[in-house]
Amino acid sequence: MTRLAHKLSTLPVYRQIAYQIAEEIKAGARPPNSRLPSERELAERFGISRMTARAAIDLLQRRGLVSRRSRSGVFVAQPKVRFDLSSPQGLHQQLEQAGIKPGAKIITAEIVPMKAVDARVMRALSLTEADEVYHIVRLRTANDEPIALENSFFPVRLFPDLLDFNLTESIYGILKKYYSVEPAQSFQELETSLLDEEWAAVMGVPVDLPTLEIRRCAMTEKGEPFEYAHDIYRGDRIIFTARTVRPGMSPVSPVPERASKGLGPCS
Amino acid sequence: MTRLAHKLSTLPVYRQIAYQIAEEIKAGARPPNSRLPSERELAERFGISRMTARAAIDLLQRRGLVSRRSRSGVFVAQPKVRFDLSSPQGLHQQLEQAGIKPGAKIITAEIVPMKAVDARVMRALSLTEADEVYHIVRLRTANDEPIALENSFFPVRLFPDLLDFNLTESIYGILKKYYSVEPAQSFQELETSLLDEEWAAVMGVPVDLPTLEIRRCAMTEKGEPFEYAHDIYRGDRIIFTARTVRPGMSPVSPVPERASKGLGPCS
Repeated sequence: MTRLAHKLSTLPVYRQIAYQIAEEIKAGARPPNSRLPSERELAERFGISRMTARAAIDLLQRRGLVSRRSRSGVFVAQPKVRFDLSSPQGLHQQLEQAGIKPGAKIITAEIVPMKAVDARVMRALSLTEADEVYHIVRLRTANDEPIALENSFFPVRLFPDLLDFNLTESIYGILKKYYSVEPAQSFQELETSLLDEEWAAVMGVPVDLPTLEIRRCAMTEKGEPFEYAHDIYRGDRIIFTARTVRPGMSPVSPVPERASKGLGPCS
Repeated sequence: MTRLAHKLSTLPVYRQIAYQIAEEIKAGARPPNSRLPSERELAERFGISRMTARAAIDLLQRRGLVSRRSRSGVFVAQPKVRFDLSSPQGLHQQLEQAGIKPGAKIITAEIVPMKAVDARVMRALSLTEADEVYHIVRLRTANDEPIALENSFFPVRLFPDLLDFNLTESIYGILKKYYSVEPAQSFQELETSLLDEEWAAVMGVPVDLPTLEIRRCAMTEKGEPFEYAHDIYRGDRIIFTARTVRPGMSPVSPVPERASKGLGPCS
């Protein structure tokens, strides 16, 4: 990226140091999993105090560029996991294809009385007071590291006995195989926010981590809403990708050798 | 949203207070632009110190739920602006339709020599050392408030004299009208990060604000890449929306009375 002219020297020193290290990481001079110089080494090299060196590393950590490992030092963070939102394949399959071990842990799987259901869920699923709704919360992992919390609601009326299935597998797969329901269209809303106390505790990651939140309503071919989901992805671990093709065009494939390295056409 | 059971009482007091106010905002009990009780009032009501009340408000502000206005107090934040990524219409048109005044200010518009261009841009646009590239940076505003920085690259070879046009208008509109180029397909990557010093200064907003970043490569019908963009949206001001329709299905329209209130089907 061509950078805009900017008076770096007007920044606090810890930000100047963090900026320089961040540029080295982005340029590939410091590859993922490589060890960063210690606070003492940084302090000596730049002629700064150890407190200033620590503040620079704290900033890089908040930005998701490095991670501290207890007793062994500070390391350049692993590349984020890519999740293609325009693919018909779910997260599970996509992780497998990238050579990453997928996992899902059930946090909650229950039938919720309507009086305990948020108005937004009722509206999205066109539910009445007479309905019941499943609430399923799953922690998704990649190579055993938590990367997302899925928080899904399905009308009980459409999917009797859903809780009898193995919900660590693909839920869309279960809906298709046993209920003949497939998403014909879906609406998604995507925003960033900071991880709150409840979800941070469930995921076992620090509170206030930046997240990517997706709210989704999925509808059947008849236009009947069958799912409301509110999924929370760790912003420091996930990149969403999407491909848009103008109607009538045949899509061009991404260059295979780049895809196999986990790189997209924009990377 | 049905919330998971969580021991609120184990949290620091300022987080308990912030949590309670956040729930009131989300439930609609505190509407946008309504004034929050002052630190003194919060301190009295909850029997806490003013410092604790201030820490609660700071947290709500970092989360984009409230904003401080100098001398007049703390107010519930305006709803985020919705930008539909699956619409053929650009940000300008979408803002207008929502009754929001769009604006664009040119920060940079120049021809950059290849040696100053990042390798990622060269790869994405299939450029050689013999090429030249336009670099156009635009600050986008909504009701005069900065909401995004667009950072676009176009090969000079494809668009001679592009800088002679009024670039505060839709650039895709110019490319279509004067160069007969339209995006046939595009690849997008979306992630969240914290706003760095340079971009914060250009946007006139605080550093470390959570952002939504989009990198995009757009291609012509022949598969020739014609744009590489790196756009930065304020995470506290923007919600992206998208609609996915299974091939062969005709899309259902969102309910009009909800759309006119700026609400999507998932809101």
